[in-house]
Amino acid sequence: MPDQVLDDISHRRYNPLTGSWLLVSPHRTKRPWQGQQEAPSKVQLPEYDPKCYLCPGNTRAQGDANPQYQHTFAFLNDYSAVKEEQQEYKPEVNSDDIASLLLQAQPVTGRCYVLTFSPKHNVTLADMPAPEILPIIQTWTRIYASHMSPTHPLQAEAARALQSIPSNPDGEVDVPKHQLRYMQIFENKGAAMGCSNPHPHCQIWTTSELPEEPGRELSQMTKYCAGRGRHLLADYVKVEMEKGERIVWQNEAFLVVCPWWAVWPFEVLVIAKRHVRALVDLTDAERLQFAEAVQEVTRRYDNLFETNFPYSSGIHQAPIDCTVEEAENSWFHMHFYPPLLRSATVRKFLVGFEMLGEPQRDITAEQAAVRLRDCGGELYRKASE
Amino acid sequence: MPDQVLDDISHRRYNPLTGSWLLVSPHRTKRPWQGQQEAPSKVQLPEYDPKCYLCPGNTRAQGDANPQYQHTFAFLNDYSAVKEEQQEYKPEVNSDDIASLLLQAQPVTGRCYVLTFSPKHNVTLADMPAPEILPIIQTWTRIYASHMSPTHPLQAEAARALQSIPSNPDGEVDVPKHQLRYMQIFENKGAAMGCSNPHPHCQIWTTSELPEEPGRELSQMTKYCAGRGRHLLADYVKVEMEKGERIVWQNEAFLVVCPWWAVWPFEVLVIAKRHVRALVDLTDAERLQFAEAVQEVTRRYDNLFETNFPYSSGIHQAPIDCTVEEAENSWFHMHFYPPLLRSATVRKFLVGFEMLGEPQRDITAEQAAVRLRDCGGELYRKASE
Ligand SMILES: O=P(O)(O)O[C@H]1O[C@H](CO)[C@@H](O)[C@H](O)[C@H]1O
Ligand SMILES: O=P(O)(O)O[C@H]1O[C@H](CO)[C@@H](O)[C@H](O)[C@H]1O
Repeated sequence: MPDQVLDDISHRRYNPLTGSWLLVSPHRTKRPWQGQQEAPSKVQLPEYDPKCYLCPGNTRAQGDANPQYQHTFAFLNDYSAVKEEQQEYKPEVNSDDIASLLLQAQPVTGRCYVLTFSPKHNVTLADMPAPEILPIIQTWTRIYASHMSPTHPLQAEAARALQSIPSNPDGEVDVPKHQLRYMQIFENKGAAMGCSNPHPHCQIWTTSELPEEPGRELSQMTKYCAGRGRHLLADYVKVEMEKGERIVWQNEAFLVVCPWWAVWPFEVLVIAKRHVRALVDLTDAERLQFAEAVQEVTRRYDNLFETNFPYSSGIHQAPIDCTVEEAENSWFHMHFYPPLLRSATVRKFLVGFEMLGEPQRDITAEQAAVRLRDCGGELYRKASE
Repeated sequence: MPDQVLDDISHRRYNPLTGSWLLVSPHRTKRPWQGQQEAPSKVQLPEYDPKCYLCPGNTRAQGDANPQYQHTFAFLNDYSAVKEEQQEYKPEVNSDDIASLLLQAQPVTGRCYVLTFSPKHNVTLADMPAPEILPIIQTWTRIYASHMSPTHPLQAEAARALQSIPSNPDGEVDVPKHQLRYMQIFENKGAAMGCSNPHPHCQIWTTSELPEEPGRELSQMTKYCAGRGRHLLADYVKVEMEKGERIVWQNEAFLVVCPWWAVWPFEVLVIAKRHVRALVDLTDAERLQFAEAVQEVTRRYDNLFETNFPYSSGIHQAPIDCTVEEAENSWFHMHFYPPLLRSATVRKFLVGFEMLGEPQRDITAEQAAVRLRDCGGELYRKASE
């Protein structure tokens, strides 16, 4: 490591993707912990739970029955945060009327899907070999493609991708009535991350507005491209591959790092090595390589503290309705934000100073990368079977 | 409410203090909750706990003994996130060297204090009448004043304030060796907010750099002043007092609102009504009125779900080292970020979409304000004694 001193001193690091700083205090893990303990997850779940609203064949809150699906199954969330149809609302912002300036609102419509990862109630991505994760990535790609605007700059790529992806025998989601702007694919895993059902699943929220976080990243990437004629994440991949110290794992298509600017203790970033703008850009081989990367991250997480590791994860990519420039400036990547810090039961709280001041972490990204690099063996649950 | 429709539709609201948007989904509280339940806090604590490192007379981790203090007691955190002295580090950023651009760091020094609110182990701000909270505000003011740079634009105000604040018989913290830039006063209350000791206390982190959050607010307030010749929060106070619908409580000096842009379910903002730049600007009468506001917020929180309500709170004000312009653009306020959503045991998780997309809330700020307005009676614990 070039700047070994950063292992010992408090410092701030810059996140070029969001344009913000965070505080790193490497000596701080020495403090004793007397606070809240997380409940370790119940380890023994049945393969089928008759009360689970995600298991095949079961009935959901609004009375619909799930098919006997084989791999994945997508449906509209019964309690969606955004809806396709709602009352019209056209607020007026008038710069002479301070109330209209200080109380600004805009309507948001959209669709929220739930997508199961497997018919089995008791598996997680960490338990699934890459070929079993592949159908999930294929489904993500199909849903992304079907929600792209008719004039989307990646329509040709989408057509090509769809040709080699088998359609889902358990049905596809239909196309929304109005064109939407952004598709956020994310997974909340574990009770510590607000997940209320252990059946493996993710959510897909598709909204009429570009949300803050991908919006900020896109604007940072756009600025970087404009200023340097190269891509921010292309340069970042290059730097990380030269340095090596934050790399967790890689294959030909993806680099897995604890990013320089990680906030969560074992935060991970999966970055496409070549210029992939969105899911539809991935080749058959790359989709499998992406499945491998997801499998590596989730298995290593579980191995780290020998527990069902909680996290939120999500993909950032080109908007589903965008200009050529926006598509070109986008760079496909996936974030993993896991809260555990020291063990299966002691988490990092981003509270107090983190909320009022700025994010703060207790171990360096380099220390986290070493630990994740070192626990790549077989899934601990399997090894002890 | 002028735009009643916002009670029914999904929409985004703009936060002018940070320049960012959040998603509001008012219909979403209807979904059933099967996820994590918070442990209700142990209600019966002793007034003195021999094992508590904050109780008067007890010995702390590094061997120092606490005095038999009367009101407040401040000491250097034994596990500070930043330290006063550390190895030097002077990174070079060179625009031709992409590694130096993408892996940016800067050293941070500072001091972290712990400040107890009361010698009693088993009280909280909600239990303390305003005159008992006053000494805390006086101590905050003294510590702020003693950490101001010699050329700080508010030195005259500080001198005046200190004249009327009795010095703490239990000792004052001494002055740091190097001038620091910002003082973040904050409280984490409750295990759900990462607090590991129920003894009432806050923390004060004083750093050589201006943290992200107050930095962002200062820059938004500066832009607003430059553009309109008025203060953002002055205008906001005016708008909220005209509308009324988000007001929780007020006295002559302070307005307590659920801000238009609240993210946490019962988020509250306490705003000075006149142009107070920092603690040292407050008059004797205003310090007591601030104590009243803090007492109102914390008591109402506890009454809402009849529980020891967890939250993180903190003060934003002028930096301790700043220009005349920075001091003039600052406007004293205090944020309360509480996680509970539906009851003493069901919290809002800001995960998944909130981390990857943008913050999302399930009830409107107006609905939250009505509920907090309605639970102003005596503290529920007292009423049932
Ligand atoms: O300093 P404490 O109370 O041990 O720790 C708590 O507050 C800190 C400042 O908000 C956070 O960084 C920690 O994650 C939290 O557990
Ligand atoms: O939709 P779910 O799983 O019921 O709810 C969970 O994920 C949502 C999206 O990240 C969050 O808004 C909720 O706070 C969380 O509990």
